Amino acid sequence: MNTAILVSEVGLRDGLQSIERVMPLKAKKRWIAAEAAAGVKEIEVGSFVPSKLLPQMDDTAELVAFAKEIEGLNVVTLVPNAKGAQRAAAAGVHGMSIPFSMSETHSLKNVRKTHAQMLEEIAACAEIASGNGIHFAVSLATAFGCTLEGAVPEDRVVALAEKAIEAGALELSLSDTTGYADPAQVRRLVRRVREAVGADRLTTLHLHNTRGLGLANVVAGLEEGITTFDASLGGLGGCPFAPGASGNLVTEDLVLMLNAMGLSTGIDLDALLAVRAILEEALPGEPLYGFAADAGPMLDYRQRTVA
Amino acid sequence: MNTAILVSEVGLRDGLQSIERVMPLKAKKRWIAAEAAAGVKEIEVGSFVPSKLLPQMDDTAELVAFAKEIEGLNVVTLVPNAKGAQRAAAAGVHGMSIPFSMSETHSLKNVRKTHAQMLEEIAACAEIASGNGIHFAVSLATAFGCTLEGAVPEDRVVALAEKAIEAGALELSLSDTTGYADPAQVRRLVRRVREAVGADRLTTLHLHNTRGLGLANVVAGLEEGITTFDASLGGLGGCPFAPGASGNLVTEDLVLMLNAMGLSTGIDLDALLAVRAILEEALPGEPLYGFAADAGPMLDYRQRTVA
Repeated sequence: MNTAILVSEVGLRDGLQSIERVMPLKAKKRWIAAEAAAGVKEIEVGSFVPSKLLPQMDDTAELVAFAKEIEGLNVVTLVPNAKGAQRAAAAGVHGMSIPFSMSETHSLKNVRKTHAQMLEEIAACAEIASGNGIHFAVSLATAFGCTLEGAVPEDRVVALAEKAIEAGALELSLSDTTGYADPAQVRRLVRRVREAVGADRLTTLHLHNTRGLGLANVVAGLEEGITTFDASLGGLGGCPFAPGASGNLVTEDLVLMLNAMGLSTGIDLDALLAVRAILEEALPGEPLYGFAADAGPMLDYRQRTVA
Repeated sequence: MNTAILVSEVGLRDGLQSIERVMPLKAKKRWIAAEAAAGVKEIEVGSFVPSKLLPQMDDTAELVAFAKEIEGLNVVTLVPNAKGAQRAAAAGVHGMSIPFSMSETHSLKNVRKTHAQMLEEIAACAEIASGNGIHFAVSLATAFGCTLEGAVPEDRVVALAEKAIEAGALELSLSDTTGYADPAQVRRLVRRVREAVGADRLTTLHLHNTRGLGLANVVAGLEEGITTFDASLGGLGGCPFAPGASGNLVTEDLVLMLNAMGLSTGIDLDALLAVRAILEEALPGEPLYGFAADAGPMLDYRQRTVA
């Protein structure tokens, strides 16, 4: 098992896109700055989607500029297509990723593109990223199952993973968009995809907590050598039970677990927990989730953590 | 990894002892019958503690008699001492277990006994159990840490595990009384105790969910070959955040995860979820927890489960 783990904060994208309200730019900046100060080394600050679809993401370019001023912070964004990739490149992101739904039904419904069309989009994004010295990843969405199709065959995920790499992805992540993953499946699919494309091409899992299995799936991922986990502060944007909501993995709970396990995240849990106040203030009444905030760490937590 | 997993329902003991209200005997019987019908093969129906301490457990002998009529159900109870063991034997339990706190501070506070005194009690219980053909287990409580002492040294747990076996325990379980366990610690401690006393003497984990790590710790236990997990229907008896409350592992969530992993529990999730109605009716307003009841299983859940 690797001992250094990267926790990638995706609340500003996956969290905020799931709620109706728009968080003020100023609050977003405070959130980014506070999390970076707590030791978070990668933040997905937003996505370059058309404004009419997600007005919450309108200020992504400004957030990229702001976040890039923070030393040592890896600033990434989501892009839905080549047009978004061009905007991301113009904004000067360090990295960008595009979601590629393993369920073609979901892909057609969500972005009106077949798998073949998505692979063309990926190739176009890869070219833009490469031309601008930007790290480019493809997020294999609905990799563990789909609310429309049900089971997503693992053979299909492996085959599309290979095609995404051929199309120019430098890296992949497996995304449990629907909260369908179970720990046995995580171990199996991570292993299979890594065997197909190389272990260095799959180091990230994007897990949700819809069925309460988020951290259990993290353990399975750790066992397979995964070193990056996406999570959302306060589980923002997901009442895990509301239809369509994401039930994001809670960053604080993830950090509590990883730190207690003696893995090195570089994140100070107390400082991270304090960031919740920014969300509470900027989005009053918005439900925040997680156990760490209420139960606090174990009495011997400091003894367990690495320096 | 073993493919057959025993889920042991402890809600009637660990759940009910943590709430103030007394559940009527009739409702307890309905609960036991309904869970057994859902496929649960072991139920801890109560404990033989003095009535003045836990009036909720007054009807344990009647519940043992009732539960023993259910074919194939393993009927177990907790006993705090030799006096309780005699009552359990008289009631005709299949198995009994005694909690043995690895934190001496906790032991003194909870049952006013030192470790040495507890080992005498264990020996006395073992004799009673053995003389009556009853399976006898020792539950190593606060094995992963203590709210009073903080860290509990693993060397101490291993040493006391050996002494408990010497004193006549046929089996041990590691109990995370305080919700302190993390997955790395679970793997380490299970391995160490099994090395010391033999793998067949440690097959059970009793985990809590106080910090949301319950199912993550189950995964760690599974990886180490653990085959029995205690859990409480609806996480009864533990608002995980209330001081002193247990935050029990939720039986339904555990079963959802294990079944989805293709492990064989023999438990029908739908039937198990329906048992919650008995608790809701008998204990109106008592909070029940869990994700499975709200989110339901994945669309392809049936495909994942074994026959």
